Amino acid sequence: AGDPAAGEGKVAACAACHGTDGIATAPIYPNLAGQNAEYLVSSLKAYRAGERGGGMSAMMTPQAQALSDEDIADIAAYYASLE
Amino acid sequence: AGDPAAGEGKVAACAACHGTDGIATAPIYPNLAGQNAEYLVSSLKAYRAGERGGGMSAMMTPQAQALSDEDIADIAAYYASLE
Repeated sequence: AGDPAAGEGKVAACAACHGTDGIATAPIYPNLAGQNAEYLVSSLKAYRAGERGGGMSAMMTPQAQALSDEDIADIAAYYASLE
Repeated sequence: AGDPAAGEGKVAACAACHGTDGIATAPIYPNLAGQNAEYLVSSLKAYRAGERGGGMSAMMTPQAQALSDEDIADIAAYYASLE
């Protein structure tokens, strides 16, 4: 499982849209605070694999492609840990 | 914008995984309670268009293809309205 403390140090790019606190900065983006970590991992891996199109995928695919499996686990654990 | 009261009557299929209360029934599914309606609409339309693959898309694509624009707006408004 990911390390939420490590994840906190990896969300600088995420936070521009999803907030450091997991509350989206605009309503077209999803809130991530308290989201299930397992779902967040699945979602980021689908973007990274180029499977998830539509929506904000033009932004998310390259972001996810910069992440290792460990990065994804840590980021997911961080956002899941928030209220 | 969608009608949350109408949406409540349209989530029987959604609720099997996402809960009537928007809390997922298993951690591989996302919680939807309080999610931004605009994001939920975008997500369902991406599934309906066949753009969003990976993850649970094999389940979600046919579900979304059964929904009209009004259904999507109402369902999104319902889940967004929950705590």
